[in-house]
Amino acid sequence: MSEHARDVGLLSPVTVGHDDVVTDAAILAALVDAEVALVHAYASLGVAAPAAAVAAALEDARPGGTDPIDARALAESSVAGGNPVIPLVRLLKARVPSADRAWVHRGATSQDILDSALMLVAKRATGLIAASLRETEAALTALAAAHRDEVAAARTLTQHAVPTTVGLRASTWVRGIRRAIERVDAAAAQLPAQLGGAGGTLASFVEHAGPEVASGLPGAFARGLGLAAPEAPWHTTRWPVTELGDALVQAIDAAGVLAADVATLSRTEIGELAEGSGGGSSAMPQKQNPAASVLIRSAALRAPQLGATLHLAAALAVDERPDGAWHAEWPALRDLLRLALGASAHAASLARGLRVDSDAVARNLALTRGLLLAERVSLVLGPVVGAARVAAIVSAAAEGEDLEALIEEALIEAGTSSVDVGPLLDPARYTGLAGELVDRVTGSTAEIEEA
Amino acid sequence: MSEHARDVGLLSPVTVGHDDVVTDAAILAALVDAEVALVHAYASLGVAAPAAAVAAALEDARPGGTDPIDARALAESSVAGGNPVIPLVRLLKARVPSADRAWVHRGATSQDILDSALMLVAKRATGLIAASLRETEAALTALAAAHRDEVAAARTLTQHAVPTTVGLRASTWVRGIRRAIERVDAAAAQLPAQLGGAGGTLASFVEHAGPEVASGLPGAFARGLGLAAPEAPWHTTRWPVTELGDALVQAIDAAGVLAADVATLSRTEIGELAEGSGGGSSAMPQKQNPAASVLIRSAALRAPQLGATLHLAAALAVDERPDGAWHAEWPALRDLLRLALGASAHAASLARGLRVDSDAVARNLALTRGLLLAERVSLVLGPVVGAARVAAIVSAAAEGEDLEALIEEALIEAGTSSVDVGPLLDPARYTGLAGELVDRVTGSTAEIEEA
Amino acid sequence: MSEHARDVGLLSPVTVGHDDVVTDAAILAALVDAEVALVHAYASLGVAAPAAAVAAALEDARPGGTDPIDARALAESSVAGGNPVIPLVRLLKARVPSADRAWVHRGATSQDILDSALMLVAKRATGLIAASLRETEAALTALAAAHRDEVAAARTLTQHAVPTTVGLRASTWVRGIRRAIERVDAAAAQLPAQLGGAGGTLASFVEHAGPEVASGLPGAFARGLGLAAPEAPWHTTRWPVTELGDALVQAIDAAGVLAADVATLSRTEIGELAEGSGGGSSAMPQKQNPAASVLIRSAALRAPQLGATLHLAAALAVDERPDGAWHAEWPALRDLLRLALGASAHAASLARGLRVDSDAVARNLALTRGLLLAERVSLVLGPVVGAARVAAIVSAAAEGEDLEALIEEALIEAGTSSVDVGPLLDPARYTGLAGELVDRVTGSTAEIEEA
Amino acid sequence: MSEHARDVGLLSPVTVGHDDVVTDAAILAALVDAEVALVHAYASLGVAAPAAAVAAALEDARPGGTDPIDARALAESSVAGGNPVIPLVRLLKARVPSADRAWVHRGATSQDILDSALMLVAKRATGLIAASLRETEAALTALAAAHRDEVAAARTLTQHAVPTTVGLRASTWVRGIRRAIERVDAAAAQLPAQLGGAGGTLASFVEHAGPEVASGLPGAFARGLGLAAPEAPWHTTRWPVTELGDALVQAIDAAGVLAADVATLSRTEIGELAEGSGGGSSAMPQKQNPAASVLIRSAALRAPQLGATLHLAAALAVDERPDGAWHAEWPALRDLLRLALGASAHAASLARGLRVDSDAVARNLALTRGLLLAERVSLVLGPVVGAARVAAIVSAAAEGEDLEALIEEALIEAGTSSVDVGPLLDPARYTGLAGELVDRVTGSTAEIEEA
Repeated sequence: MSEHARDVGLLSPVTVGHDDVVTDAAILAALVDAEVALVHAYASLGVAAPAAAVAAALEDARPGGTDPIDARALAESSVAGGNPVIPLVRLLKARVPSADRAWVHRGATSQDILDSALMLVAKRATGLIAASLRETEAALTALAAAHRDEVAAARTLTQHAVPTTVGLRASTWVRGIRRAIERVDAAAAQLPAQLGGAGGTLASFVEHAGPEVASGLPGAFARGLGLAAPEAPWHTTRWPVTELGDALVQAIDAAGVLAADVATLSRTEIGELAEGSGGGSSAMPQKQNPAASVLIRSAALRAPQLGATLHLAAALAVDERPDGAWHAEWPALRDLLRLALGASAHAASLARGLRVDSDAVARNLALTRGLLLAERVSLVLGPVVGAARVAAIVSAAAEGEDLEALIEEALIEAGTSSVDVGPLLDPARYTGLAGELVDRVTGSTAEIEEA
Repeated sequence: MSEHARDVGLLSPVTVGHDDVVTDAAILAALVDAEVALVHAYASLGVAAPAAAVAAALEDARPGGTDPIDARALAESSVAGGNPVIPLVRLLKARVPSADRAWVHRGATSQDILDSALMLVAKRATGLIAASLRETEAALTALAAAHRDEVAAARTLTQHAVPTTVGLRASTWVRGIRRAIERVDAAAAQLPAQLGGAGGTLASFVEHAGPEVASGLPGAFARGLGLAAPEAPWHTTRWPVTELGDALVQAIDAAGVLAADVATLSRTEIGELAEGSGGGSSAMPQKQNPAASVLIRSAALRAPQLGATLHLAAALAVDERPDGAWHAEWPALRDLLRLALGASAHAASLARGLRVDSDAVARNLALTRGLLLAERVSLVLGPVVGAARVAAIVSAAAEGEDLEALIEEALIEAGTSSVDVGPLLDPARYTGLAGELVDRVTGSTAEIEEA
Repeated sequence: MSEHARDVGLLSPVTVGHDDVVTDAAILAALVDAEVALVHAYASLGVAAPAAAVAAALEDARPGGTDPIDARALAESSVAGGNPVIPLVRLLKARVPSADRAWVHRGATSQDILDSALMLVAKRATGLIAASLRETEAALTALAAAHRDEVAAARTLTQHAVPTTVGLRASTWVRGIRRAIERVDAAAAQLPAQLGGAGGTLASFVEHAGPEVASGLPGAFARGLGLAAPEAPWHTTRWPVTELGDALVQAIDAAGVLAADVATLSRTEIGELAEGSGGGSSAMPQKQNPAASVLIRSAALRAPQLGATLHLAAALAVDERPDGAWHAEWPALRDLLRLALGASAHAASLARGLRVDSDAVARNLALTRGLLLAERVSLVLGPVVGAARVAAIVSAAAEGEDLEALIEEALIEAGTSSVDVGPLLDPARYTGLAGELVDRVTGSTAEIEEA
Repeated sequence: MSEHARDVGLLSPVTVGHDDVVTDAAILAALVDAEVALVHAYASLGVAAPAAAVAAALEDARPGGTDPIDARALAESSVAGGNPVIPLVRLLKARVPSADRAWVHRGATSQDILDSALMLVAKRATGLIAASLRETEAALTALAAAHRDEVAAARTLTQHAVPTTVGLRASTWVRGIRRAIERVDAAAAQLPAQLGGAGGTLASFVEHAGPEVASGLPGAFARGLGLAAPEAPWHTTRWPVTELGDALVQAIDAAGVLAADVATLSRTEIGELAEGSGGGSSAMPQKQNPAASVLIRSAALRAPQLGATLHLAAALAVDERPDGAWHAEWPALRDLLRLALGASAHAASLARGLRVDSDAVARNLALTRGLLLAERVSLVLGPVVGAARVAAIVSAAAEGEDLEALIEEALIEAGTSSVDVGPLLDPARYTGLAGELVDRVTGSTAEIEEA
């Protein structure tokens, strides 16, 4: 480990191994990418930029290049001006023959490069995040199909409520994940490059190359980076950042729901679910901790506040570049990308390895000795024996008496034989549209949702 | 004032007068609306519900109805069960003849009604919010057009940087507001009704009316309420709430940027902008406080954390109904709606009344005696007299020497006459594409953005 | 319900019935209290203020007074100036004979009155909060004592880990609650009055009454209100607000831990704890929801973000009165007080009624058939039979083999008789210092902690 | 830069150069410190631990040691179990001769080591933070003394309100900083070691060494680390973390207020303050950005949400070790320490270098041509010429008429000569107790505050 590295992931197990695309090295590479793209953008518009030569001189400045810039030293020299682009430009210019030097960072302001680089990094990260979410979705969809009709206890406010199915629970996770995929994809598709010059007027570009080139430059720059062309400079119109942030938080939320359910349902007493590879404990080798769920949850508890920081920064984007709000954005956005990368990757492996213990599901289903069907008993028997009698039956059953016997007795007293108690108390017959709702998600019927 | 009212707005001037649609009375009315809509939904599907009779019995329970339910008493009776629907159903059933009573709340769970009612309230609120944002947009667009070419100092990190225009600044506000409108509209259009029964399986509806009716019921219910048909129950898939929340925060962010700029630019020393009707001070009658901006900013500082609460609640939506996360959502969402209603309404009035003091704009523009053009001087003179000389010139000018004279001297020394210093130092000639960027927003040219 | 009331608690069951001291009516009363106290403060310093007459004229303006000011109307007239004190002063002055009118609000600025009133309301609320926390503490301490030696499964990362005791778990809750009491008490004791005049210099008071009186006035004002004398005006030094907020969040955190454990341990499958009076369900009469825990948790999920808003407001307290940050504070602080009032009250009733199901505790303890002692088996057998063998034993036991038999077999193979397996696997013999840790909390031994 | 380093500070200029004590290397060193201290603690209690030998074997595992553990590799191996202590213990044990190996991590659980290490790191960091705050305090106190009587415009809601002094403004900053020092010191003094074993009962320690040693072990362990002895294990009673977090946020708030004022008052149009060494701009060499203020503000916008995350984690600390909340704490706490280190260091250098431009102060003071005294005019003239006339005078003056002449005219009309207009409009005569309030802070009078 470099003695200078602030953070190698020691306190962030949820992101370790998943955040290579958002490291400071990746940021630095993207900053260089942005400077290179700017030179190419001029060239692409017919301005006689010595693009190839300049680009060649800059390329090897990337981490991993033949003559990499030291990111830590760059960070140190970024303090005085408050951002790393100022010293970076000095370093890059020094690599270019003086004749061509003017083409480096030509007309740009720090924010153009930093914003574009962050969007580029976000683009790369969101691709991975969406891929992990898709893996999660696929695995959970298969799980939903496989357990379509496996009846389980639904729980509300921690208590057994009515029957549901394992498949429906998995389908619910899928819906959340799917929606998150849509949002992440949409946010990724619209990530814009930034190019506005010091005050967002593009005056420096006009000065250098005339209004026509200046007008085309943001689009050309964006194309070179694989980013969306900005409608206009967005120095203080930060929705590209907050919409991205919102989508990332939403993705983590969706993984968080999965993790919350897995952590809960893998409790020692419940045991309906188990992670494929539980986290071990040094002292207690028997424990199979829901480690992925725990890690995902750690991300889910942090992400919303990071999203809030992005919104605050957006709301305080005063002047043509704000006095702190912009700077607050960078690490918050990067942390959010890291968390989304980690949480989605763990969600994928969790989903792939998730095991259902059908015995435990069945055992828990039977735990309340029929009271899981109390709602149904109410609905069916209420009109026959009266609500008061139903309440008495449920109450007695809750105290330990046999529900079926109590019902039979009441039916006899009511002189009716219209109700068949066995089927009435069969949880498998009180799962409503669970199967259909699963099918809508798995696509196994003709009635596919349109959404 | 009712002695029971918790809150009449005394500590929330930003929302007073704008939040009638999200009061507890409005929530209560929406709860009744949801119960009425459920009865109608059955009827609309051909189930012989005595819809008209039941609806008639429920209608007058609304606040403002002929026999309104007391919201405060209802709140008090909601504590034991943790939500107001449980006691509400009891009260509503008591209003219906016993023969029809079974049609009230038939098959529904509290969450169905409460979630649907909140979405209904959100629908009504977002309509008003979007309308206020549109008024804001229109007023600011007109402002941008009117001041298209009025040159002003652009400020970065609090310091004069380069020239911009008043029109471009206004256009930037417009872009933020427009994007927010899109998001609020999109969120409003997708607000779904909720109908899933106790465990999200719709089992109770199937029990009552068979699978076919049950399958159609959510859509019919949604149509009756003017809400989107849910793809499936979303008891624990809370993106309808978080996406709405994100859009509301984004709207407040956009208003916040406007307010931040107005508050800053109306500072006594700056004076470029003034609110149409400044807030007075009892003790200091001369003060014209940017009261609307202050109020909007108070909302902008609160909103992101409320949005974060919604995301947290979403990420912790365990089981088939979570043990606290759902309950945390309600007041956070309502507060966010209130803030968005208030902030957008104040943004509209602020935008309509906003005054530009062109003298102040011009005075500030001249404040640095040409140094606002330093970037341009650099770009133009650098190749001619060298970067070192330019730096010396700027430095001397910053110390008080005459910039124009310094430049002339340098040009003479360099033996060049290629640069015309007067135009070089004219800020109006260094506004880049500001005019075009304004036109894209105001639509006054053919080059309308496609977005 | 007043048709104007924004909020009667319908969406906030956790606070209903507990927040009378922080309603808008209570705020209004405190505003009047502050104005009255100012008049008395002048009088107490020998300035010939017609204190009695003025006070008499103001007294009946309080909600509940003989001629109460309408809080809603006041709220409406507060929008223009951005705070309710400006119109309040007008209303109050109109109640005083013109000869004495100058003594109303004499020298004060809106912030003096509003800050002081909020501190006064906070003082009243924190008294109730601390009282509820003390009730909670007492009930939980008694529970800890009563269940001092009742062995239970300790759970880490959701899995059974090692034995603990019900008493130690309760003691842990007590420690959190006790610490919160200390913090709330400390925050309450230091709540300062505010008196600084428009710019925090007290110039207006000096103008009216000379420097000596002005110097004594803040202290006299504070005494009259039962608040701490301010060291200096704290218009933009907001630690009194944030320290209060932090203490309130800490109190809610402590209640939150209790609620989290109760909600978890009262799950249908676990059943070790039950709230005294569970919340019913309309549709599922058998359910005994942990309603108080759910409500407390809803507060615990909201409170941290409200605390964050107070800190943001504090950090942005620019100038001599900030342009929005101050206004953002009021509703956030009030909401936090409401939540702390509600959460602490519910914690008290939850603690009083909390029931331990000792059968369930014992049943769960036995659930892993001895594996709860795996750590101990490791510690004891490791040196005897080797770590590898221990791991094999634990692993086999986890697969269902009999742990005791496996150990006996290993000991025989190792040829040792030094270990007595029965006691080794007795969870009651592996609770460490649990008893002592309980005693430290309950004070039942001489070794009372000093803290 | 290591290619593996996640973060070398590139996106966090506010913390670069100030966070060496909280890097992952520092965390790793503290983890080793904790393991070493545990061995020594046993030895200190007379248990025949081979402390010296074991410690010697562990010492060189620290980063910078002769055989350092690779932090990144450790991070990678921490994922499976969810925390870095599990693999660390394996690595450390392997360094110790097998005979002594059992003394490594003896009886401890991961949380004991990780919590203790974080507290140790916090201890080191808070020392630096408090030192920086003390430097800030000293510099600002000197500034307050030096500018005790320099009259300046006080601003409320962005507008000039009444006079104040530069010294009083500085004193206000000092008060915030002082209070923060108290809180940071108090939090630092109470940072506890953690030692409870797997379930917080210390059972493993009792097993190893008997109850007496086990009882003394936490204290001995804490002493060895220079931390406070824990009252009891605090695995799920997280106030040591939240109180620390609250103090850190408060420190950042206090620096934030300073930064907000400096950023505002160094605006081009205002210019009353300037940072000693402004941040340069590549493109605009004339700009003297308030770079330190900007960086501090970036921290101030992030810190509150990190504090909120700590509280959330505390409130969700379920069971004997929670399923995610604990893990969410670590990076949030570390980030908060980083931000406090950076913000306080920049506050110190900002305070040391802060320059007052007395010409600008005077120029701004005169900007409203006397209207800054409107409150005083009201107070003094109101009783003489009537409030309506005063309002008319102020209004006319606000429109540009000469205030002094208007007053003279009114006094003549009123036939009074009791008011001397020159002194009345002298801002230096309307600064109230500003001087005294400064003296209380600078300690230059006998009336030193007791606080």
